Amino acid sequence: MNVYQERIARLREVMLSNGWDAVVVSGSDPHGSEYPAARWQQVKWLTGFTAEAADVVITHEHAGLWTDSRYFIQAQQQLEGTGVQLHKTRVPGAVGIPQWLSEYAKVVAVDGLCQSMDFISQIADAVEDVHIVDVPDLLQELWEERPSIPVSPITTLDVACFGGRQRGEKLEWLRKWMLLNGADCVLVSSLDEIAWLLNIRGSDIEYNPLVISYLLVTQDSVNWFVRKGEATMDPDTDDSFSELTDDGVDIEDYEALYRALELLSKDESIAKVFADPVSLNYHVYAHIAELFTEERLSLGSSPVVLEKSVKTQSEIENLRQTYIEDGAAMECFLYWLENELASDRQVSEWDASQKLTSLRAAIPGYRGNSFENISAYGPNAALPHYSTPEEGSRIIEPKGLYLVDSGGQYLTGTTDITRTVPMGECTYQEKEDYTLVLKGMIDLSMAVFPSGTTGHQLDVLARMPLWKAGRNFGHGTGHGVGYYLCVHEGPQSIRYQYNPQPLLPGMVTSNEPAIYREGRHGVRHENIVLCREAGTSEFGDWLDFETLTCCHIDTSAVLPELLGAEAEAWLKEYNTHVFQTLAPLLPGEVAEWLEKKCM
Amino acid sequence: MNVYQERIARLREVMLSNGWDAVVVSGSDPHGSEYPAARWQQVKWLTGFTAEAADVVITHEHAGLWTDSRYFIQAQQQLEGTGVQLHKTRVPGAVGIPQWLSEYAKVVAVDGLCQSMDFISQIADAVEDVHIVDVPDLLQELWEERPSIPVSPITTLDVACFGGRQRGEKLEWLRKWMLLNGADCVLVSSLDEIAWLLNIRGSDIEYNPLVISYLLVTQDSVNWFVRKGEATMDPDTDDSFSELTDDGVDIEDYEALYRALELLSKDESIAKVFADPVSLNYHVYAHIAELFTEERLSLGSSPVVLEKSVKTQSEIENLRQTYIEDGAAMECFLYWLENELASDRQVSEWDASQKLTSLRAAIPGYRGNSFENISAYGPNAALPHYSTPEEGSRIIEPKGLYLVDSGGQYLTGTTDITRTVPMGECTYQEKEDYTLVLKGMIDLSMAVFPSGTTGHQLDVLARMPLWKAGRNFGHGTGHGVGYYLCVHEGPQSIRYQYNPQPLLPGMVTSNEPAIYREGRHGVRHENIVLCREAGTSEFGDWLDFETLTCCHIDTSAVLPELLGAEAEAWLKEYNTHVFQTLAPLLPGEVAEWLEKKCM
Repeated sequence: MNVYQERIARLREVMLSNGWDAVVVSGSDPHGSEYPAARWQQVKWLTGFTAEAADVVITHEHAGLWTDSRYFIQAQQQLEGTGVQLHKTRVPGAVGIPQWLSEYAKVVAVDGLCQSMDFISQIADAVEDVHIVDVPDLLQELWEERPSIPVSPITTLDVACFGGRQRGEKLEWLRKWMLLNGADCVLVSSLDEIAWLLNIRGSDIEYNPLVISYLLVTQDSVNWFVRKGEATMDPDTDDSFSELTDDGVDIEDYEALYRALELLSKDESIAKVFADPVSLNYHVYAHIAELFTEERLSLGSSPVVLEKSVKTQSEIENLRQTYIEDGAAMECFLYWLENELASDRQVSEWDASQKLTSLRAAIPGYRGNSFENISAYGPNAALPHYSTPEEGSRIIEPKGLYLVDSGGQYLTGTTDITRTVPMGECTYQEKEDYTLVLKGMIDLSMAVFPSGTTGHQLDVLARMPLWKAGRNFGHGTGHGVGYYLCVHEGPQSIRYQYNPQPLLPGMVTSNEPAIYREGRHGVRHENIVLCREAGTSEFGDWLDFETLTCCHIDTSAVLPELLGAEAEAWLKEYNTHVFQTLAPLLPGEVAEWLEKKCM
Repeated sequence: MNVYQERIARLREVMLSNGWDAVVVSGSDPHGSEYPAARWQQVKWLTGFTAEAADVVITHEHAGLWTDSRYFIQAQQQLEGTGVQLHKTRVPGAVGIPQWLSEYAKVVAVDGLCQSMDFISQIADAVEDVHIVDVPDLLQELWEERPSIPVSPITTLDVACFGGRQRGEKLEWLRKWMLLNGADCVLVSSLDEIAWLLNIRGSDIEYNPLVISYLLVTQDSVNWFVRKGEATMDPDTDDSFSELTDDGVDIEDYEALYRALELLSKDESIAKVFADPVSLNYHVYAHIAELFTEERLSLGSSPVVLEKSVKTQSEIENLRQTYIEDGAAMECFLYWLENELASDRQVSEWDASQKLTSLRAAIPGYRGNSFENISAYGPNAALPHYSTPEEGSRIIEPKGLYLVDSGGQYLTGTTDITRTVPMGECTYQEKEDYTLVLKGMIDLSMAVFPSGTTGHQLDVLARMPLWKAGRNFGHGTGHGVGYYLCVHEGPQSIRYQYNPQPLLPGMVTSNEPAIYREGRHGVRHENIVLCREAGTSEFGDWLDFETLTCCHIDTSAVLPELLGAEAEAWLKEYNTHVFQTLAPLLPGEVAEWLEKKCM
């Protein structure tokens, strides 16, 4: 019995003694975060599966892990020997957890802190006569050395330097929205929404500059619930909490939320409390539902999500510069990598990853990586979210394809870029896949579209070159990107799956088609694009994309007959633009090398 | 005061004496038909607007007509002097009738027979405390020579000759669906669903081979409510009602539906009655709602719509042949037109339309046109649904663009084709528009896509060449096409607007992008495409389109630099295929002419 089998067995004993049919363990935290802090990496602790975006159901007969196609190969590998079975999501005929439970369980225990109210509603809708048992920190007694809730130094952002709007302006906007929508109080539980509203950043969660907290906003108060006793300001900055309190933000303890809600419930001026069921956890929701009558509770999509996604002019200007500096680091990395191999020095995936991080870290304003570098050579690149191991990672050879997906957190923005690099001779299939994916990325980059168009509508542009060759990829084509915030943010996306959110000028989205061939290779090309206005004609108002990413695309594996004339012209212009923009910022030998790559 | 102002004034008197704030007049009939018979062309009688797809609201202060972009220019012209104002639908910020009413009316009178239950629900949802007054045949007392309900001879289809499935098989399928979905009785009110289920056709509605009727199906009965006393079988055929009665279809009078519903309501074995709120009229719905408790009524999308849209193998084979014969008639027409002009003979739009109809009428199995021919020269083609006048229609000149959109009803299928024909010298803008629309049509024709993809996702392929040039069109790119049934049918479509229905193998859909320039010209290229299976790869199952339409596309107005190499290759192959297929069927001089056009 391995450690995971043992943990699951112990959990089943707890289930038996409590009369639970099933336990649902989420891959999230009390704030609906995509990447939870170590304390809440419950899926990893229970099953050994290390990626985000997975949920687990344990019954007495079955242990299952639900995840999407980005992680199918990884899950098959990591779950081996645990007895946990993979349930594929986002594939035709997929059975989600709620429907699955409807066949197997009536008494379902959850850690209500780590399940969204929305998800529990889905279970309640799907499973007839279900009894949901909310056990906060359900795994606590089994998990002996469970990490505590993280507390990291807090930074306040000076918008004069770092772009965006003053927190006062943002709060004023939110209060206007509240007036228009009949909400007297808004509970914000999503951490990036709180960080955006208050212009604060922390590092409670790896790669995500967030502070574990809740926020309550009324027309005349702002209460921020954070580890008050332990929270400190970043010693490297002149920031202080007084900046927040001067702006009317009352700082209270994290756990004081419940008491504050109780007080609010007794306040007759609070006719309606608004919260977003996607980020509101079930435990807090249950408290609210006890305190407030149904009429006083309004659930809906948080307006902060959309507002935050539309970058301001100053943010856009900072982003342009940030992507140039990030691109220069990428070019130095690619130059270094090519040179190392040319000099017959051994470079492992891990070495390469470390080198890239060190180059980014030298950029002023760097605050860390925006996610774990994916440094994957050969067959490893067929795992869309490959996690490069520190020990024993693969040596990069002077042939085939190396894929590097990485990004930085900077005070002036968040970056995300993937380059697939031909390291030498490539097979014909590698070249085909390389070219078709590139054509998809370019075709999407060249799109012009009327106001009101969604990313769902444009998705086909990135896929059609692949589809015509009978190829495809199972993940989205594009996700929103935050501004010194989460590298994945909504509400827009470019996806095969329907999402009604139109692309708006100022939205920043990734463009990353791919092809994965298990056991062989993976190709992904990713640029970040800014949606912008593109004029008006007698037929309406037009939008298009400005590519923010500034790093050349290697042409050595391109099959021109597959790329087509229009995409080839785009590629030529792009590489020329990259060279002209970056050359002045690069050491002489790197600029010289880049010129050869780009021309 | 013109005739329409007078009619509206008389209606307002009726409104005043009854205390109605508003009357909503629909462009449909008691069966939710797209094209109503003359009796139900109430919008035309009241306002003079002649197209289908419009609804009218009359209040004491306002008269408004709601229609979509296909009819904006026509509405502006035809409504002049009537005092009726155009309300645009399907444009950004459009206010539909329900929302509009919420501002202006509490007591809303409708002819419940001609309003779908669905639409009345929307009004009830939008207008607080609304009082809906159902007045069947509301306009009857004002409309002195109102046509009666049409009764035309009925044909039964012999599937051995005409393709498709036996009615017994169809009823068996429906009954199985009923068992699986807990429906003990299905009320079918949509005329094309009835025609499809019973394998019958009539001609009660111009261009639509339908019989005005209702159908009630239970596990052991089929009741068809039709003008029993007047209905006859087509004297040209050997058909008889006995074929239907032998298959267990009881033929009852049209008005006997209400009595039958009453009897059903007393039948304890009928626990659930199913109907589709989109085609069910409000008047019948109100009867049902009185007779049946809410628990006994189940409303949802009729399964017949989807089942009917997926053509059988025998239907597909017939369609291929029918589109070849229809294409041969088109080529004879185009040859004739070019010759007439070359011989300096005057040809009006109307003359051309008549000629085309006469050529189609000579095809065996021809049963009429599938819609009113659109024969539009020059600026008239800027009206997407131009109605060619019999008197004084425009003379086609040997320059610029002539647009002809037409189709036939045949025992072996329904056709629909648009060709835009350069009649001689064209302006650069005409050529640009011609080429860009053609590129859009071809790009969509070449699509390959995974199972599960919707027409909404593919729509962008037809539009992107236009969008990149700042051009667009306001209607859908593609509609389903019936099989010797309505030329417009669901559930699939290829549209900018979201429609969740995936394209399935066997579905027949139009592909008709366009550009309209008011006062100048219009371009539309329309082929009909069949969705079909296109193999399996390691990445999934693939679908693509087979083009059914077989009629050359004129290359004289094509700008090759705009068309691009891939689309040019497609066009060359298509025209070659058209020539090779049609040449053996055409008179020698037409075949010779076609060879020149195609090579």
